[in-house]
Amino acid sequence: MNGRHYDVAIIGGGIIGGSIAFELAKRRMKVVVLEKDRAVSQASSAAAGMLGAQSEFSSENPLVPMALKSRSMFPKLAEELKELTGIDIGYIEKGMLKVATTDEERMALKQQYEFWTKIGQPVQWLSPDELRQHEPNVNQSLLGVMYIPRDGQISAPHLSQAFVQASMIHGAEWYEFTEVIDIKREEDSYKLLTNQGIIRAEAVVAAAGAWTGLFLEKTGCPLPMFPVKGECLLVKTAKPLIQATIFAKNGCYIVPKKGNRLLIGATSTPNTFDKKVTVHGISSLLERAMQLVQGVGGAEWERTWAGIRPQTGDGLPYIGEHPHYRNMWIATGHYRNGILLSPITGILMADLIERRDHREIDLSPFSVKRHNGATCTT
Amino acid sequence: MNGRHYDVAIIGGGIIGGSIAFELAKRRMKVVVLEKDRAVSQASSAAAGMLGAQSEFSSENPLVPMALKSRSMFPKLAEELKELTGIDIGYIEKGMLKVATTDEERMALKQQYEFWTKIGQPVQWLSPDELRQHEPNVNQSLLGVMYIPRDGQISAPHLSQAFVQASMIHGAEWYEFTEVIDIKREEDSYKLLTNQGIIRAEAVVAAAGAWTGLFLEKTGCPLPMFPVKGECLLVKTAKPLIQATIFAKNGCYIVPKKGNRLLIGATSTPNTFDKKVTVHGISSLLERAMQLVQGVGGAEWERTWAGIRPQTGDGLPYIGEHPHYRNMWIATGHYRNGILLSPITGILMADLIERRDHREIDLSPFSVKRHNGATCTT
Amino acid sequence: MNGRHYDVAIIGGGIIGGSIAFELAKRRMKVVVLEKDRAVSQASSAAAGMLGAQSEFSSENPLVPMALKSRSMFPKLAEELKELTGIDIGYIEKGMLKVATTDEERMALKQQYEFWTKIGQPVQWLSPDELRQHEPNVNQSLLGVMYIPRDGQISAPHLSQAFVQASMIHGAEWYEFTEVIDIKREEDSYKLLTNQGIIRAEAVVAAAGAWTGLFLEKTGCPLPMFPVKGECLLVKTAKPLIQATIFAKNGCYIVPKKGNRLLIGATSTPNTFDKKVTVHGISSLLERAMQLVQGVGGAEWERTWAGIRPQTGDGLPYIGEHPHYRNMWIATGHYRNGILLSPITGILMADLIERRDHREIDLSPFSVKRHNGATCTT
Amino acid sequence: MNGRHYDVAIIGGGIIGGSIAFELAKRRMKVVVLEKDRAVSQASSAAAGMLGAQSEFSSENPLVPMALKSRSMFPKLAEELKELTGIDIGYIEKGMLKVATTDEERMALKQQYEFWTKIGQPVQWLSPDELRQHEPNVNQSLLGVMYIPRDGQISAPHLSQAFVQASMIHGAEWYEFTEVIDIKREEDSYKLLTNQGIIRAEAVVAAAGAWTGLFLEKTGCPLPMFPVKGECLLVKTAKPLIQATIFAKNGCYIVPKKGNRLLIGATSTPNTFDKKVTVHGISSLLERAMQLVQGVGGAEWERTWAGIRPQTGDGLPYIGEHPHYRNMWIATGHYRNGILLSPITGILMADLIERRDHREIDLSPFSVKRHNGATCTT
Repeated sequence: MNGRHYDVAIIGGGIIGGSIAFELAKRRMKVVVLEKDRAVSQASSAAAGMLGAQSEFSSENPLVPMALKSRSMFPKLAEELKELTGIDIGYIEKGMLKVATTDEERMALKQQYEFWTKIGQPVQWLSPDELRQHEPNVNQSLLGVMYIPRDGQISAPHLSQAFVQASMIHGAEWYEFTEVIDIKREEDSYKLLTNQGIIRAEAVVAAAGAWTGLFLEKTGCPLPMFPVKGECLLVKTAKPLIQATIFAKNGCYIVPKKGNRLLIGATSTPNTFDKKVTVHGISSLLERAMQLVQGVGGAEWERTWAGIRPQTGDGLPYIGEHPHYRNMWIATGHYRNGILLSPITGILMADLIERRDHREIDLSPFSVKRHNGATCTT
Repeated sequence: MNGRHYDVAIIGGGIIGGSIAFELAKRRMKVVVLEKDRAVSQASSAAAGMLGAQSEFSSENPLVPMALKSRSMFPKLAEELKELTGIDIGYIEKGMLKVATTDEERMALKQQYEFWTKIGQPVQWLSPDELRQHEPNVNQSLLGVMYIPRDGQISAPHLSQAFVQASMIHGAEWYEFTEVIDIKREEDSYKLLTNQGIIRAEAVVAAAGAWTGLFLEKTGCPLPMFPVKGECLLVKTAKPLIQATIFAKNGCYIVPKKGNRLLIGATSTPNTFDKKVTVHGISSLLERAMQLVQGVGGAEWERTWAGIRPQTGDGLPYIGEHPHYRNMWIATGHYRNGILLSPITGILMADLIERRDHREIDLSPFSVKRHNGATCTT
Repeated sequence: MNGRHYDVAIIGGGIIGGSIAFELAKRRMKVVVLEKDRAVSQASSAAAGMLGAQSEFSSENPLVPMALKSRSMFPKLAEELKELTGIDIGYIEKGMLKVATTDEERMALKQQYEFWTKIGQPVQWLSPDELRQHEPNVNQSLLGVMYIPRDGQISAPHLSQAFVQASMIHGAEWYEFTEVIDIKREEDSYKLLTNQGIIRAEAVVAAAGAWTGLFLEKTGCPLPMFPVKGECLLVKTAKPLIQATIFAKNGCYIVPKKGNRLLIGATSTPNTFDKKVTVHGISSLLERAMQLVQGVGGAEWERTWAGIRPQTGDGLPYIGEHPHYRNMWIATGHYRNGILLSPITGILMADLIERRDHREIDLSPFSVKRHNGATCTT
Repeated sequence: MNGRHYDVAIIGGGIIGGSIAFELAKRRMKVVVLEKDRAVSQASSAAAGMLGAQSEFSSENPLVPMALKSRSMFPKLAEELKELTGIDIGYIEKGMLKVATTDEERMALKQQYEFWTKIGQPVQWLSPDELRQHEPNVNQSLLGVMYIPRDGQISAPHLSQAFVQASMIHGAEWYEFTEVIDIKREEDSYKLLTNQGIIRAEAVVAAAGAWTGLFLEKTGCPLPMFPVKGECLLVKTAKPLIQATIFAKNGCYIVPKKGNRLLIGATSTPNTFDKKVTVHGISSLLERAMQLVQGVGGAEWERTWAGIRPQTGDGLPYIGEHPHYRNMWIATGHYRNGILLSPITGILMADLIERRDHREIDLSPFSVKRHNGATCTT
């Protein structure tokens, strides 16, 4: 790689970097992805793969149109990636059940139901009978159950890998174990000093998830960001227990996966990059899962893992240009919506880099400059 | 192996078979061990390695003298095996704390304390102050704590492997993935048909743990036996939390291992050979461990596994000759005392095979014939 | 399970047992599968998944019509299983290149080419230019290359799992860790004593792969059978190196799998049940693979494993009724064609059990009775 | 950790950082170790553990006295660490056989033999008969064999872990997943900005192995350093094949480990941080090992891994003070002698930090300033 010149250098080889690389390479740009570890080795592969475009929001939010748009892209994306790479991303549209276990949660769930009804996106309030019919193994003493038919799911590791390979088929280059040490503006391009040599690029995209903050420090523009550890686990049942994803208000979800697997997630531990899975984390996930779905107790343990997700000060991602450096772009802070938002983020970033107009989605709430005054130094 | 003739063929390559092979080979007999899977791949390597010669008994029991004798053999055995094989079996003599969490348990613990005091084996009733001093991280609201200084521990996988290698150094042969299909009496010796060929042996020892019952069926002498699954897990703490093994009445124990590991065990699920670790099993172990020792919640998850232990109808092992076949021996049913009893079982079986007298330990309670009338057919 | 009564009990939960269970359950029979370990844990999951209906044969052979028929069933089967279970069995029809590295191999390959040309199944002899165009990374100094466009491939672990789950969806019951100890004829049904209790079944199918021989011993009818260990390994390349499977005469094949994986197999070590992967096996596979395909040397090591395949005296499987016991069926000995033949074997066995006529395929060469006189005892 | 003040902050939690932390903590300094991943997760745990104080040198070299001194420290260190932590570091003193396979190698080996004979450190030239007697499984057609009785070995993962725990027992604090982003001089101490917060320390030690170069870039003083990947593998034999380590001139060595394991290493791939194990690497190691020792071909494959070792421009480590910053220390570049040199490096660095005199060992050849003029900028 040493000495090469690219149109775009993407720092970070996770699902966001992969989606951007895929889109840019399709548009015939010369793209390189620099990943300090292995490709898609962090939060991207750790995710549960829920496409919770509705489940994640209960009121007006700048992310809503983006989330709905991105969710709608999955069926076609699944076909495109399968065609290109042979990888089945496991797209399933059997919906999500969001459930309430306390009166307070029930009220919040009712509000969310009304929000989506007003907007006109399908949601359904299930009666106990309907719940029993749909999902006989779900705890029948829940205080409220809302069905979201279109919040499907995919397999996050498969989607992540498919982006990598599809981008490569379109010509993107990937360098793993490649750490950016320093970055310098040189006339019209950027010079990146890495542990494997020097490259140059017209544009740079910082898409390193929770590690983007460290990169931004180097550019004199630290943004309000923090890592949030999430622990998950996978178990296997003798027979399928549920059809839809079950999502409890307290952050516990159970996602049915192929081969009679249940993916149970996720804890939220802020301000740590430590990926160790803790006894307390597992214990709390197992306890809540056993309460939500009958038969989980008899499931077979398979494995557990953790990922570090990038959260921002106001909960909205950063998608935009660096306040001080032209053609330096930032795409991070998707927190637990990175999988869902990956397709649209790839499109949006490619449009931004090409300086195309966006009519459909207002990107100003995601501007990096919203925190500009307070934190950047020249 | 096909066509060879041995002094003794041991069926089962676990810790009992390994200890017997070690002792017989030391006595210069020509020994072969036939193991249907890998050596020491079942309960032997799954065990926690506690040497609970006192903790397991609260009243007169034929096993008591055997257990005390066997426990006393470990210091010298550890040296001998290290010398021969280079393997450190991890012998540690920091004792065990047996604890009571209910009034009922407290009474039972008191009785156990009195039993051992009367016998003259050291036990100590700890005051809350003493507990705090010895083990500051153990739950200080326990209702009773008895310290058993001599109930040490070893690493079960290391001891098991050391027996295998030490026996081989003394000349024993081991055949893995070798299943005995049929066994026939031929004049003065036995002919064993295996999936790898035919061998002959003057004497046969059935030491196949929970799978011994299947073998006994073939000889027309099914004995009252059943498998008991035990699930365990291993976690790692940043700093050592406990010095001694903590043993609660309900079967939960926490054994401190090298490298700041805690081995937490064990569930007891009878009548299954299924080695799958269940959600319910892990959840209950974690919950109890967090109650017993402060700081376990923050420990890092490492791994989990299960073993299938051989239990008998009356809770006593079978150590003796087959009721119908001369020179066919049985050594199984050690349940959760297999590690503790392995050294003495090796000696006893070798003495039996050599038809030497036993003055020290009365073997009649372990005789296979105690169930003879009811179950054997000719 | 204890005490239940079934239409059919299948002994062995591999791909053959799974396919039979699937077909029988679809026909609304009450089926139970008894597996001594985990489902599909042996050769079924270890296989490379090549559908070598043509590559495996160079002359008239009773298996030819069966192999062609079975291969033709995969496209529809893949859809059916995906629909039922959500599992993508990874069916790919990019053909196979059979290659010659010596003059002798070239002659044999030419004969195979003529055989298939005569039969009218498509094969193509590739010129060096054509090879370079199709597969630029394949060694260009090969002495002969035959392209077999229809010999596709699937993922053996996925197909195996899909059979298990699809059969369960149709009502089949699976018991893992369940070993058959004894089997007795009782009036019109069989009584099976297992390590988990007793069941009864109208018909029994022995489909335990390489372990079927042990079962047949118990019924007094040992058949000429032996296990053949095959070692495989999986590596990952940065970019796809080949499109088709590459199959060398000396038994080395390289199968391109999803995610830029190459599955490299397989050694053949007869007469052992030992599943250990050896240094010699890996070394020879790696060396041959590096000779066949440029760029393999730079691939990343992923993992290695071995499977034990059931071979028979004359190289043909046993598919038929036990010579002495009515309604006891045998389906084993598929050696390295078990994956390919699994769909047709399921159909054939179901037809046999239902006593339906077979016009299409002559089963007499697979009859168990072909070895009857020599080996069975009453 | 945020806001704390330490005597010494060590950047890098490998075996060098661990040894320094251990020694400083023993001297009652307040020490913190900052490790960007897990403790001892890189080259320290990947090493083969040979103590090749003599095998590595054939002529005068500033490292010779250091290597001999460090090797002599192991017996006592093993005892001290076992006492403190319970961890057996697996110290074995069965020597090393350095072998020649070509005439050229034979001449070089003869020179090495003469060098050590002159110095008075024991070496022995083995006749074919002596070789056969010592090591009957070693290739008997070697052209030259030199026995080095005192070049023993330890288990690198155990030694590394033991340093971590021993240092903690003496009061050192370890922070994993903690990356240093920036470091600033503040009056009399250093302020370290990490991804987990800010700490201050009187002195800083950069001991980050191959990653130290990245740190030095940040301080304006890049030193000539490069990473060298080494691939290793572990196999298991049925019986012990060798007693001593076998070391061939081409860099292939076979180290006998406990449990009948052989550790086979190591390839040398410069200028990469990529830890992927390659097909080519494994293949070459296996081939050479099979040539050196009879019986390796039948060994069972266990696992493979790679480590990234820190090499310097002139092959000597950096042990000294930063040319521009007082109380900033550097200890890295030990290449493949890191395990061997870890005990002495801990002592030397502690003495340097305490500004104690060194009479025994001349540290000037290891001075960071030897490359000063060329590379440092202020």
